Amino acid sequence: MADTTGIAVTGASGRMGQMLIRTIAETDGVHLVSAIERTGHDWVGQDVGQAMGGQPNGVIATDDAAKAIAAAQVVIDFTAPEATLEFSALCAKAGVAHVIGTTGMTDAQIAELESAAQKCAIVRAGNMSLGVNLLVQLTRRVAAALDEDFDIEVIEAHHHHKVDAPSGTALMLGEAAAEGRGVTLNDVRDSGRDGITGARKRGDIGFSAIRGGDIVGEHDVMFAGPGERIVLRHLATDRLVFARGAIRAAKWTQGKAAGAYDMLDVLGLND
Amino acid sequence: MADTTGIAVTGASGRMGQMLIRTIAETDGVHLVSAIERTGHDWVGQDVGQAMGGQPNGVIATDDAAKAIAAAQVVIDFTAPEATLEFSALCAKAGVAHVIGTTGMTDAQIAELESAAQKCAIVRAGNMSLGVNLLVQLTRRVAAALDEDFDIEVIEAHHHHKVDAPSGTALMLGEAAAEGRGVTLNDVRDSGRDGITGARKRGDIGFSAIRGGDIVGEHDVMFAGPGERIVLRHLATDRLVFARGAIRAAKWTQGKAAGAYDMLDVLGLND
Amino acid sequence: MADTTGIAVTGASGRMGQMLIRTIAETDGVHLVSAIERTGHDWVGQDVGQAMGGQPNGVIATDDAAKAIAAAQVVIDFTAPEATLEFSALCAKAGVAHVIGTTGMTDAQIAELESAAQKCAIVRAGNMSLGVNLLVQLTRRVAAALDEDFDIEVIEAHHHHKVDAPSGTALMLGEAAAEGRGVTLNDVRDSGRDGITGARKRGDIGFSAIRGGDIVGEHDVMFAGPGERIVLRHLATDRLVFARGAIRAAKWTQGKAAGAYDMLDVLGLND
Amino acid sequence: MADTTGIAVTGASGRMGQMLIRTIAETDGVHLVSAIERTGHDWVGQDVGQAMGGQPNGVIATDDAAKAIAAAQVVIDFTAPEATLEFSALCAKAGVAHVIGTTGMTDAQIAELESAAQKCAIVRAGNMSLGVNLLVQLTRRVAAALDEDFDIEVIEAHHHHKVDAPSGTALMLGEAAAEGRGVTLNDVRDSGRDGITGARKRGDIGFSAIRGGDIVGEHDVMFAGPGERIVLRHLATDRLVFARGAIRAAKWTQGKAAGAYDMLDVLGLND
Repeated sequence: MADTTGIAVTGASGRMGQMLIRTIAETDGVHLVSAIERTGHDWVGQDVGQAMGGQPNGVIATDDAAKAIAAAQVVIDFTAPEATLEFSALCAKAGVAHVIGTTGMTDAQIAELESAAQKCAIVRAGNMSLGVNLLVQLTRRVAAALDEDFDIEVIEAHHHHKVDAPSGTALMLGEAAAEGRGVTLNDVRDSGRDGITGARKRGDIGFSAIRGGDIVGEHDVMFAGPGERIVLRHLATDRLVFARGAIRAAKWTQGKAAGAYDMLDVLGLND
Repeated sequence: MADTTGIAVTGASGRMGQMLIRTIAETDGVHLVSAIERTGHDWVGQDVGQAMGGQPNGVIATDDAAKAIAAAQVVIDFTAPEATLEFSALCAKAGVAHVIGTTGMTDAQIAELESAAQKCAIVRAGNMSLGVNLLVQLTRRVAAALDEDFDIEVIEAHHHHKVDAPSGTALMLGEAAAEGRGVTLNDVRDSGRDGITGARKRGDIGFSAIRGGDIVGEHDVMFAGPGERIVLRHLATDRLVFARGAIRAAKWTQGKAAGAYDMLDVLGLND
Repeated sequence: MADTTGIAVTGASGRMGQMLIRTIAETDGVHLVSAIERTGHDWVGQDVGQAMGGQPNGVIATDDAAKAIAAAQVVIDFTAPEATLEFSALCAKAGVAHVIGTTGMTDAQIAELESAAQKCAIVRAGNMSLGVNLLVQLTRRVAAALDEDFDIEVIEAHHHHKVDAPSGTALMLGEAAAEGRGVTLNDVRDSGRDGITGARKRGDIGFSAIRGGDIVGEHDVMFAGPGERIVLRHLATDRLVFARGAIRAAKWTQGKAAGAYDMLDVLGLND
Repeated sequence: MADTTGIAVTGASGRMGQMLIRTIAETDGVHLVSAIERTGHDWVGQDVGQAMGGQPNGVIATDDAAKAIAAAQVVIDFTAPEATLEFSALCAKAGVAHVIGTTGMTDAQIAELESAAQKCAIVRAGNMSLGVNLLVQLTRRVAAALDEDFDIEVIEAHHHHKVDAPSGTALMLGEAAAEGRGVTLNDVRDSGRDGITGARKRGDIGFSAIRGGDIVGEHDVMFAGPGERIVLRHLATDRLVFARGAIRAAKWTQGKAAGAYDMLDVLGLND
């Protein structure tokens, strides 16, 4: 395993941590080096494979984050903002890359990551799925290529537990479309159509939110013009796509200079 | 042509009248017998084929509706409520079937058709497309077959000129779904989702309205359950589907007893 | 639990057996009474919940099928043909309903079930998902309602491990369409289009097989006519739909007379 | 109209010629300068608007191509290879841009255009729709961004008269995907799946051809990976998209240097 990328996983016992550990085991070119849990957690000192209810995998969960990180080439981290800032400092010190899927960080917290990014490569993204990041990029390009004869509509579908509409990802796609057109989303957003709406306003970006069953997440960006339509569609059918995206980012960091990156860099789509 | 159904078309010079005349010419088993226009219209006395800018077809447009109707086996009528009531009386008198696509009739006007229906077969429908009528029927059945573990969503897409949302057809589909479930649509209608909506309420019927380009009309009825979905979809890509539906209804009336029918009867789907 | 339906599961340790046990625990109106495994299997004598790696559920796996079946109100059985015939005899003797998802039974084996069906209710189906069974029924009806102006195409998508095309379910849908039209599928089947095929033959039923990723199973039946299309679509996104279908069938058997039934009876769609 | 682009249309009386003339009249920033027909055609000397069965538009159809071209800023040409070569020579001589939608040109004929391209701007494309050209570009990029964990499938649907499968556009999309991956389409093409095919081969690009009704042309490029899918979709619903694409190209040529361009240049997508 000398030539595969050694990964440390934080928050190892959480739903995302366990999914990362299982996915790393099934992915070529990477291996699990350390699994980090907070002091006092009952996984600490246990074999991680056994703690997950399966066969031993030889990695003992630890609460010594500094040592665990120093032993790795890259850290994958889906925890909480405060923990992530601590891990960031340790990564910077050790010169180890840091892949961050933690959400809910404030602008101030994100700014704190900047200094760490002078010492190590950091990849951070609100949505780690390859597909959604690719869709964001495509949406911006298509919106820039087509004029307002093409009406832009973002349609998303999610499970019936979801409490907000449109989804954050739909809004991200809408922002990419607006950016491609050189307008501000807030000026052209048209969501919640109901009743006598009048004709669609040229240049608007419309949103529709479908809710039902256990749909993981589906997003369409439709460009409807005279006589033709383009639709850019992403379907997420399994939440493991977030784990896979993070592992791809982890591999990508190897050999990269210190700096702050996002998934579009990982995908080679930032242009 | 002795054994094909002879059709009279009212409002011959209108957009729908011309579409009917062209479609009759292309359809097996039917032929145009008469083309009716109001007194004073410049088509009266002219060959209809030529009036439409093409080759003569041997049918001279007339304002003598009684005579024109008596010569036909069935009348197809997409005009206006008052005119339709006059044609209805003539059809009843002549014992000629009457296919009515006229919209905007009041309940009182519809009641007036009942007496005519004692003398001749009448088929009346707000949307003459076969597909949409079929979809209404399927929606009712599927809604009755599935319980509330399946969330029902109606999604429609129309051109950017449309001023109301959801479409009338979407609401008709929603009513069919509600009827299948034994509930009232107004009690469960969920349209215009936007913002912090909270989780979807069990039993609701949701609506989404997509607007863009020149989409003629697309309707999905989605039943989203745990681990599976059924979607019933109708796409209209050409407005001639209304003409075709009317002609199918016209053929179907032959040999039928006097009475009031709808497109579900024509399709053999009323059960 | 006195008033909920008591279920015995055969082949308890198998993938489908375990999925049934988990799904029963999450479903109102049913409870697990017994779990049957073959003599010598290491689950026999163990608590089933623990054997599955979780908390004890109080049901001890047994190899005494006769006793286990007698204690239940209905047996759910996804095993192999020979085993299913043995369980069938025990169900008949005990007057306990039998829900059979076992596949690969020969016509002779199916005939053997007939005698048992004189003593108890049997529900048997090649595909237990509610949605697919509903789709079969809808397909037959729509094919009967529409004439050959509507071209029928069955399009299916499955994961990249699938070795046959079109899928068995696609063929079942094609047969339902052919039956609705009063033709034989073999006379009109058009699959594997490639190269200079010539124009589509009127009346044919076409098949397309998409393969990719980990798609669980998606089926479209498209009726493409002049100016409009109807599409009946089923998406399976989780294999648990088969378990849910079986449990619904199990509940439905309660109070039913002896006899042979299928999922369309369960859904109230046999007409 | 001094500051709008003056266009000459060749083959003015043909289906595409008439569609171009109508579309130019409805498009801002362009106007019809001349309409060219072959000597002896009965349109020559007639007002083109009247020849099309409508109101006069003040442009008299002519067979003097040299004069007609010299009066224009750009020529739009959907004729036949030989005629296109003649027009090309005249465009070069007059320094007038030439937009070519003519198909069926041999490599030798295409080479002949090269010398003309030293004197004037030429835009040539097998499919002039903006959407399809954009889809080609997107397909190449996405295929390059994703590895072989994503299975690529191209699915197309066309009317029942189409005689070949997959469509030429589907193959063009498949070639773009292959190019993005650095492979040759012929080595990985998997079309016409039927029967016991075995599991899908990693790296293959699959094709499915749906045929039915009057579908103008629909193309999906699906990238199906573990737990997620991206689909790039184009729907053509009206053949006028080819006219619109050509007019956009015509506008774009103004101010461009002599040279050979394609629709990706027009769209700003060649990178």
